[in-house]
Amino acid sequence: MIKITLPDNSVKEFEGEVTPLDVAKSISEGLARNTISAIVNGKQVETTTPITTDSTLQLLTWNDDLGKKAFWHSSAHLLAQAILEFYPDAKLTIGPAIESGFYYDVDFGDESLSEKDFEKIEKKILENAKKGSTFSLYPVSKEEALKTYADNPYKVELISNLNDGEITFVAHDNFTDLCRGGHIPNTGIVKAVKILNAAGAYWRGNEKNPQLTRVYGISFPKQKELTEYIEKLEEAKRRDHRKLGKELGIFAFSEKVGAGLPLWLPKGTALRKKLENFLTDAQKKGGYEFVMSPHIGSKELYVTSGHWDKYGADSFQPIKTPNEGEEFMLKPMNCPHHCEIYKTSQWSYRDLPKRYAEFGTVYRYEQSGELHGLTRVRGFTQDDAHLFCTPDQLLEEFEKTIDLVLYVFSSLGFGEDFVTQISLRDPENKEKYIGSDENWEKAESAIVTAAKNKGLKTIVEYGEAAFYGPKLDFMVKDALGRRWQLGTIQVDYNLPERFDLTYIGNDNEKHRPVMIHRAPFGSMERFIAILLENTAGDFPLWLSPDQYIILPISEKYVDYAKKVSQFLENHDISGLIDDRNEKTGKKIRDAELKKIPFMLVIGENEENDGTISVRRRGEGDLGVMKMEDFVNYFKKEAAI
Amino acid sequence: MIKITLPDNSVKEFEGEVTPLDVAKSISEGLARNTISAIVNGKQVETTTPITTDSTLQLLTWNDDLGKKAFWHSSAHLLAQAILEFYPDAKLTIGPAIESGFYYDVDFGDESLSEKDFEKIEKKILENAKKGSTFSLYPVSKEEALKTYADNPYKVELISNLNDGEITFVAHDNFTDLCRGGHIPNTGIVKAVKILNAAGAYWRGNEKNPQLTRVYGISFPKQKELTEYIEKLEEAKRRDHRKLGKELGIFAFSEKVGAGLPLWLPKGTALRKKLENFLTDAQKKGGYEFVMSPHIGSKELYVTSGHWDKYGADSFQPIKTPNEGEEFMLKPMNCPHHCEIYKTSQWSYRDLPKRYAEFGTVYRYEQSGELHGLTRVRGFTQDDAHLFCTPDQLLEEFEKTIDLVLYVFSSLGFGEDFVTQISLRDPENKEKYIGSDENWEKAESAIVTAAKNKGLKTIVEYGEAAFYGPKLDFMVKDALGRRWQLGTIQVDYNLPERFDLTYIGNDNEKHRPVMIHRAPFGSMERFIAILLENTAGDFPLWLSPDQYIILPISEKYVDYAKKVSQFLENHDISGLIDDRNEKTGKKIRDAELKKIPFMLVIGENEENDGTISVRRRGEGDLGVMKMEDFVNYFKKEAAI
Repeated sequence: MIKITLPDNSVKEFEGEVTPLDVAKSISEGLARNTISAIVNGKQVETTTPITTDSTLQLLTWNDDLGKKAFWHSSAHLLAQAILEFYPDAKLTIGPAIESGFYYDVDFGDESLSEKDFEKIEKKILENAKKGSTFSLYPVSKEEALKTYADNPYKVELISNLNDGEITFVAHDNFTDLCRGGHIPNTGIVKAVKILNAAGAYWRGNEKNPQLTRVYGISFPKQKELTEYIEKLEEAKRRDHRKLGKELGIFAFSEKVGAGLPLWLPKGTALRKKLENFLTDAQKKGGYEFVMSPHIGSKELYVTSGHWDKYGADSFQPIKTPNEGEEFMLKPMNCPHHCEIYKTSQWSYRDLPKRYAEFGTVYRYEQSGELHGLTRVRGFTQDDAHLFCTPDQLLEEFEKTIDLVLYVFSSLGFGEDFVTQISLRDPENKEKYIGSDENWEKAESAIVTAAKNKGLKTIVEYGEAAFYGPKLDFMVKDALGRRWQLGTIQVDYNLPERFDLTYIGNDNEKHRPVMIHRAPFGSMERFIAILLENTAGDFPLWLSPDQYIILPISEKYVDYAKKVSQFLENHDISGLIDDRNEKTGKKIRDAELKKIPFMLVIGENEENDGTISVRRRGEGDLGVMKMEDFVNYFKKEAAI
Repeated sequence: MIKITLPDNSVKEFEGEVTPLDVAKSISEGLARNTISAIVNGKQVETTTPITTDSTLQLLTWNDDLGKKAFWHSSAHLLAQAILEFYPDAKLTIGPAIESGFYYDVDFGDESLSEKDFEKIEKKILENAKKGSTFSLYPVSKEEALKTYADNPYKVELISNLNDGEITFVAHDNFTDLCRGGHIPNTGIVKAVKILNAAGAYWRGNEKNPQLTRVYGISFPKQKELTEYIEKLEEAKRRDHRKLGKELGIFAFSEKVGAGLPLWLPKGTALRKKLENFLTDAQKKGGYEFVMSPHIGSKELYVTSGHWDKYGADSFQPIKTPNEGEEFMLKPMNCPHHCEIYKTSQWSYRDLPKRYAEFGTVYRYEQSGELHGLTRVRGFTQDDAHLFCTPDQLLEEFEKTIDLVLYVFSSLGFGEDFVTQISLRDPENKEKYIGSDENWEKAESAIVTAAKNKGLKTIVEYGEAAFYGPKLDFMVKDALGRRWQLGTIQVDYNLPERFDLTYIGNDNEKHRPVMIHRAPFGSMERFIAILLENTAGDFPLWLSPDQYIILPISEKYVDYAKKVSQFLENHDISGLIDDRNEKTGKKIRDAELKKIPFMLVIGENEENDGTISVRRRGEGDLGVMKMEDFVNYFKKEAAI
């Protein structure tokens, strides 16, 4: 009898050898139909792999991430099969499943693959898939494997690195590949496929090796799912913050200034300032004090903080001075500066907590290939703050900080759909972290308790803590369901030690304060990128860089337009006048494209009556209003 | 006959040899009494120096800067004479007049000079001065001069560098010194003297040379003037922004962060933000658009701008990256970044002027010995803007910029007493500057015309222009009559060339825009230093970091204090609660010391009636007010 333990800890017994599919069938026919892969004793296998001893088993369907992985890995075999049918001299290398879909790296020799070839490959894949072939995995000796791939140096290299006895081939239909296994029951369930892209990629990622073609694809069990995926992809392209940032005049990059160093254009600066002001007000109400610190610090500062030892070699290198042998570093974090600000006075327990906030621009080196729009940059501004409190205040301060982050999220439309992750030490690997066991335990318990008290849905990840302390991260979902990491709150018992920070307790003795690092947005750059993609540039009214555009119906009314504009600007409503010599219809269409929320049309009647004709984007005509009435209406609509 | 041309171009004729004093006497006895030095043909001489040919002559009194120079230079002789009487083995080196007073560098050998010795020296100087000795200048051969100073290696070194025929000695009373001349008629007019300080100084400023004692002094024709000077000196010490900055919690320095890199404390940050908001509003009204740029740029950016060639070796050195061989520079100026922002679009003449403003923090290396509080730092934030306009718009833009600077000055109490300096090229040394003759002439003429049209009192200085263009600088006088350079406006035809900036003209061709650099404050750091010294920390009401302090007369009223505070904060009035268990009188005294403008005393009556008892610093009790009435009163008082 073989005992099979399922994820819910129920146990099923079978006489002799059994396959995952057999187990599925023993539960229900429906489950058996949907099972496409399985995990036996922690290893992903085929649904037909025999189980010969007592085992744990997890059955995987398309709805499981690892189910998709098997589906896409199998689809990569179908892709390779189709490629060889059209390009028999192509040399295959490797073809894994990835987060969304799969790829295969291929050496096409003298031939090449272009977009116009994608359709025929897609058709061929589906034609082959329809045959409903099963994947059969069998062991091959190293000698035989090398012989099989004698004219493919890539596979030879892969095989050479394997030991005899651990080499397997996988065959389906007329195609066989070197492969470790983990496939779907048969090719017939691949009902939709799309080749997405063909791009250059070096063999094994090393630019000294030959360049291959990486063919990206994605596949689904239903055509409808592919259609939806492609729509989402196109929507994501339309919402790409790099594209929108340019179109809306938010930011730009310049090769001369340097990769990864954004230039904020007037409309982007206006947007950023509004967000900064919003955060400033929220923090002032929470008892934060604002400070400002320089963008460099002596190397010694980072030796003290530990950043030099940890990151020095991988960072922007030290800045030397002409005569005096001093060395400065671009600041990668604001915390060491804030510690030095804390140290400018001897505080008493009555003065704590001190909460120092700063929109602090920091610089971190990233390889140029890693840079991406505003989400991966070399210079960015954290909405940073550091709280210094007594150990007794820690839990309360942590909870207040969670409240602040939640307030900020809900004000910006991310209040509904977010998850939090508590990152703790890897308990097996404690030497990776600085600070005593006792302090780590205190800090970790404060985070867990605060998150619980605030009713957060949390995932706990061991080994994900920062080297100086545990943390709570906030992940939001955007309009396309994509997850983004935003805010972070981190407890730190270590920097107060390293900087020898103290306060006088009510026992008149010196004590060590605890420090909290926190940033609700994370960085202004990243947050604005997410905001752009989430809203597709249709910002909440209060954040719109241009909130109105005045459209005089002819040049005669430009003076009145200026008067209206002045009135609105005096009420902190910002916008433009479109004084071009164009038809009003055309002006309205252009304003809609620019995503300006209010179009204020003015002509003779409006000038005579001191009114404006108000149009709202997406809503149309709102009628004629007196200027004061429009201001009141606007203020109500723009309230956070 | 000798013709003497006076500064008013009047000509006087004399028969044969004549001295400046003779000329003064020929005008009036009073003038002759007050004449203490003279300039003949551009060279400063004694009043008794014979004039033997037709010459120009300027008579100098104590009221002339160069008159003071002669007075203080002569006083240095008196100082040296007195020192030798007390310390006959001391070796004299050099003793010039400086901006305020004079010094003498002395090698005291085994002896030393301390503050307790100052009085006896002062007495001796006045005792000697009273003798009314004249200074007589006579030529000495190099050989004889070297013999005279055989046991003084400093004077020997000085004499060795002179040619035979240009060596003169000056004698008065029993004292003779190596000297070029330029003295007052007789020692008797030195009626008051003060030794200010004795500090270490290396011979010829080189730290490899022996260390000397630099004895600083100042002298006056009247005791009253000395008394006033000392009072002013003490007042300046009280107003020293480094002292006030610390006392009021405005800024601090930390050795670990680095010399010359200010940390802005909460109250300083609040003050700075208020100033920035004020300037932001003023500039938005003037059609400026705000942008933000990173604090570093690729080295290539500064090669293009010319900064690398001009300043590279003396600046913070390039920042290298770990792998990619890229090099970045800390930005010393915002202009190259703004040029790149301009280049993100192709503008038409209809779009100009573009006015990009940024509170841009820049970093410039200064030797640590040159650093001074906030006035000489290594990182500072310019209230910067760059205007890009057509040549036709230049004059108007320049005038508008002058208007903006004047508005800013008058709003901050510097509107009354300022002068402007126009800095033009050195016409003899044109190769020092980049750009064509034609462009320089256009730019210089625009500045001169705009300054004239705006009715500015200007000084024109040749050779003081920046290497890239001419400029207009604003110098303000503070409460102690000291002059500070603040705002600057500069025309630049060169960066548009170097960055190949263009706009499309109404001829549909590309043209080169003109650029204006300008900063009304110059830098936030320097401006706040001056504001601190000018106001002695008594900021204008709207700028006060703490505008009120609530003084509950006992702990019972702390809750009501919080309610009042919340009400005021909601009306953008910021302040504190003093909830210490102290007598109200003591709290008032402490609040006065902290220079908080309004003290709001609350007790039972106030809580019952919803009122506050208002005290204003320097004015006393203003009576009981309802909260709303106080807000209205405050807003009126705080209006800019």
